[in-house]
Amino acid sequence: MSHDLTSSSPAVLRMSTLFVRTLREDPVDAEVASHKLLVRAGYIRRAAPGIYTWLPLGLRVLAKVEAVVREEMQAAGAQEVHFPALLPREPYEATGRWTEYGPGLFRLKDRKEADYLLAPTHEEMFTLLVKDLYSSYKDLPLTLFQIQTKYRDEARPRAGLIRGREFIMKDAYSFDVDDAGLDASYAAQRAAYQRIFERLGLEYVIVAATSGAMGGSRSEEFLTPTPIGEDTFVRSAGGYAANVEAVVTPVPDAVPYDDAPPAHVEDTPDTPTIESLVAVANERFPRPDRAWTAADTLKNVVLAATHPDGRREVLVVGLPGDREVDLKRLGASLEPAEVEPAGDGDFAAHPELVKGYIGPGALGPQGAQVTVGAGPDASTVSAVRYLLDPRVVEGTRWITGANQPGRHVFDLVAGRDFAADGTIEAAEVRAGDEAPDGSGPLELARGIEIGHIFQLGRKYAQALGLTVLDQNGKQVVVTMGSYGVGVTRVMASLAEANHDEKGLAWPAHVAPAHVHVVATGKSQDVFDAADTIASGLAARGIEVLYDDRPKVSPGVKFADAELIGVPVVVVVGRGLADGVVDVRGRAGDDAEQVPVADVVERVAERVAALL
Amino acid sequence: MSHDLTSSSPAVLRMSTLFVRTLREDPVDAEVASHKLLVRAGYIRRAAPGIYTWLPLGLRVLAKVEAVVREEMQAAGAQEVHFPALLPREPYEATGRWTEYGPGLFRLKDRKEADYLLAPTHEEMFTLLVKDLYSSYKDLPLTLFQIQTKYRDEARPRAGLIRGREFIMKDAYSFDVDDAGLDASYAAQRAAYQRIFERLGLEYVIVAATSGAMGGSRSEEFLTPTPIGEDTFVRSAGGYAANVEAVVTPVPDAVPYDDAPPAHVEDTPDTPTIESLVAVANERFPRPDRAWTAADTLKNVVLAATHPDGRREVLVVGLPGDREVDLKRLGASLEPAEVEPAGDGDFAAHPELVKGYIGPGALGPQGAQVTVGAGPDASTVSAVRYLLDPRVVEGTRWITGANQPGRHVFDLVAGRDFAADGTIEAAEVRAGDEAPDGSGPLELARGIEIGHIFQLGRKYAQALGLTVLDQNGKQVVVTMGSYGVGVTRVMASLAEANHDEKGLAWPAHVAPAHVHVVATGKSQDVFDAADTIASGLAARGIEVLYDDRPKVSPGVKFADAELIGVPVVVVVGRGLADGVVDVRGRAGDDAEQVPVADVVERVAERVAALL
Repeated sequence: MSHDLTSSSPAVLRMSTLFVRTLREDPVDAEVASHKLLVRAGYIRRAAPGIYTWLPLGLRVLAKVEAVVREEMQAAGAQEVHFPALLPREPYEATGRWTEYGPGLFRLKDRKEADYLLAPTHEEMFTLLVKDLYSSYKDLPLTLFQIQTKYRDEARPRAGLIRGREFIMKDAYSFDVDDAGLDASYAAQRAAYQRIFERLGLEYVIVAATSGAMGGSRSEEFLTPTPIGEDTFVRSAGGYAANVEAVVTPVPDAVPYDDAPPAHVEDTPDTPTIESLVAVANERFPRPDRAWTAADTLKNVVLAATHPDGRREVLVVGLPGDREVDLKRLGASLEPAEVEPAGDGDFAAHPELVKGYIGPGALGPQGAQVTVGAGPDASTVSAVRYLLDPRVVEGTRWITGANQPGRHVFDLVAGRDFAADGTIEAAEVRAGDEAPDGSGPLELARGIEIGHIFQLGRKYAQALGLTVLDQNGKQVVVTMGSYGVGVTRVMASLAEANHDEKGLAWPAHVAPAHVHVVATGKSQDVFDAADTIASGLAARGIEVLYDDRPKVSPGVKFADAELIGVPVVVVVGRGLADGVVDVRGRAGDDAEQVPVADVVERVAERVAALL
Repeated sequence: MSHDLTSSSPAVLRMSTLFVRTLREDPVDAEVASHKLLVRAGYIRRAAPGIYTWLPLGLRVLAKVEAVVREEMQAAGAQEVHFPALLPREPYEATGRWTEYGPGLFRLKDRKEADYLLAPTHEEMFTLLVKDLYSSYKDLPLTLFQIQTKYRDEARPRAGLIRGREFIMKDAYSFDVDDAGLDASYAAQRAAYQRIFERLGLEYVIVAATSGAMGGSRSEEFLTPTPIGEDTFVRSAGGYAANVEAVVTPVPDAVPYDDAPPAHVEDTPDTPTIESLVAVANERFPRPDRAWTAADTLKNVVLAATHPDGRREVLVVGLPGDREVDLKRLGASLEPAEVEPAGDGDFAAHPELVKGYIGPGALGPQGAQVTVGAGPDASTVSAVRYLLDPRVVEGTRWITGANQPGRHVFDLVAGRDFAADGTIEAAEVRAGDEAPDGSGPLELARGIEIGHIFQLGRKYAQALGLTVLDQNGKQVVVTMGSYGVGVTRVMASLAEANHDEKGLAWPAHVAPAHVHVVATGKSQDVFDAADTIASGLAARGIEVLYDDRPKVSPGVKFADAELIGVPVVVVVGRGLADGVVDVRGRAGDDAEQVPVADVVERVAERVAALL
């Protein structure tokens, strides 16, 4: 979707008739500045949770953002198409995503009880369309895009436009006959994304990312750094950058354990925390070479994964006691399942898991039988899935639970005394951790995901039968890329990056107008002069928001101008008696008094300098 | 939604890379020319019943149609906003439309089981938005519009874009403090619609219409006349024009019946049709003054109405035997109920309705008791609702069923011998019928509804509490208008009105390009010359579709050019040896040979003359 409204809209927007009302109070549900200010300044209104209505000012900014995205897509050789939002189930069934998307997908039935969905993204449809039209390697490469309304039933819509349930996305899809082609198409989109964000003046970082429900091999995210971002990413001085979900833990070398003492179970009363356990260990069972630390304890965290088919699985993640489980990293590792800490019901269903004293002896590999209880009451059950942090390599020695209340096992050696179902990236990443590529210690920061590019490879083409004849007359499966920009989210990110305590402060090329002319006072001379200036600017092709409201005080008008955030402000008022008007930047910068006769020329210069 | 793609898209669209494939065969589900040709020429593709994907050529035409609509809305002072398509139930519940829309509304639930809908139209949301922002008569008048994707779960999506389930509409809403204001806003939109269709070169008729589920008092439709139209409309030489659903039957004067003979029941075996009944009547029971005709028989048609709450009601419509029931007119009269001929089950449930011999004695007014059967087995039931054609006025004499097999009643006088629950507009309108305003006999024609404007009045404002303070400080309910243009349907109508057996033939201002340059043959000179012409035209701001495909035969290229329908065709080929190229109109009109050196200038002149 796009809104070509600036080209044909009236060059002067008069506040007296413009459909806008500014608010002095923040909306009650707003947490972040962009959300508060876009609502207060009359750009958007909430229609339902995560669903917004666009008012005239908002639509103008959106149109400008869309125009930049469209131009760069076209410059990159992508062709625009437009798919429906309401789609039949079958293609999404064929790729498994009808189920994998879980509750995040809006599903509905038509009057004939046929299943439909509101598309969260369109890989399937693009694949089928290209299959429908094309059949030869000569038709490729091809990149298509659309700017379109998307739907995701977010569990927690938040931050206004940043995480909505109905939103506008630019999604592009590339089709190539081989991997080298995909690399080239991916590189072209990546470069287009860089140009888009550079033109929009939106700071960005490109980070390695996980592919999630989208599937495929390589993927990168474009994040705009901001403390209110939902994504955490890491960077090293040596150039490594990744979304925290995509950080791969460097695996230490295995440790020789021929000389390791045998494991021994000890009574460890009063050790409710890892700290207290470490203290007891150092006091009663000191290690000869060095003191025990939290990193020597193996913490086993019980979690529950809900699979797309609704099945709930209890599983355990083992990790060094000095690290927490990062649920987002764990969730990314277990996608499409959704994961949460285990609840009382999960523990009740697994009596072998002795809360606070869980050790490998009660856990996987799956299929193993483990003992519940002791003595004559003991019974056996199948082990739950047990996944280990990659740091728990063969030969490492651990203090961990003995599966009996008040008891821990010491010198339990990985690979000698216990095994698991595999490793998992679930532990938090910390500032100072070594980058996976050895390029130095990591720094952590937060950002908003504004773009995401994927090398999908052949997943969708394979599932939906998109093949072409290659040069040798052989059917080959097409390889695809998928490239998304969150258009509404980009607009919110621009608001987030360009505001102060008084309101928005748009960059000129996305502002709803270039100049805000404010007429103050009651004199007809003021309004006449302001009219002339406004239309003089409009005649120069400059977009003018003109506050011509007759009975509104200068204070209210100034506050509105600061809230709305048009970059250049022209105040026609008291100075007019001396033949001058005030010209200043939105932030009060570069204020100057300009003779009335020169003001159009001077303002045009200032606007030109900003564009 | 809009697609500002022409302004920034590449000026030369090369067929060698353009995402398009023309088809020689009509799609199997296509019945009308616009549907067949838009699919075959590669403008749209079906994604699901009544749901289409837009390919690059289609999107370009759509963008141009949208631009005209937008410009005229802005010129009429309407301000653009944009509402979500996914909306919560509550506002539609408040106005009753959640239920009234019946199965035509796409309904769904979110992950929290809250009810949502895909909006078929946005009266409720606009009303609430204005209520949210405005509070004084000084804020009015106000007209807002959007160009947005709408959803209707049509029972029978058909004719491609003409009756789709996901489609693009321009909907506008006016807000006024009093009826005079509404009249002015309505007139402004009406005039804007005239300009839109005039600029698009789309023939239109403005006809009186029914308001349907929308409610409100006055409404008019813009129809484009075409034999494939779903709507039937009437016109008189004296200027009356109405959708056939809106035609009000002129009511004859009551007839004196003091001298009418008493009603008498007669055996009328072997009268299965009205024709045979009339013949028997004239033979056995001749009328002294003139012969009986079919118009003297009272035909009672049994129908079943399904109400929005799911209740099925059997009802009977009585009308002169020379007229059929028009289910669309009946449906409009009974909205929001959906109506169909009664089925066997309905007759089984109403044994008092003796098929073929139904008469008023077994029918309403509702609440009356009527007898079923005869003799000792007779019983009584409550009468079904009985509605009469307005021509059945007091004193008219009828032959009709006697509610016994093989028997009819004669000289049954309306008002003396029977009564009903009221009148209904359900009888077919016929060519030659008198116009309701006495302006002469009616002609019938078919058309596609391309616009519909409504004076809603206070229905929505009342239901949702939209009031403003008037000049006297009194709260008054705002009065509203609602104005829709079916944007995708307008595009289909343009295709319908501009095609021949070879393909589409777009007017220049909505064509996907102005000029189609076709390079024929294998000589590099031809392609070099065509390249130069294409870029020369593009440099003049002319949009060029350039068939640069190297290995495609001239015949295929010409057929594609005729199918795609760009208005000016330039053929670079054989003539090049003599220094000329062929220039012609899409229909082969005004063919000329132009020296290569002059061709850009000459084509620019031809394009300018078309725009």
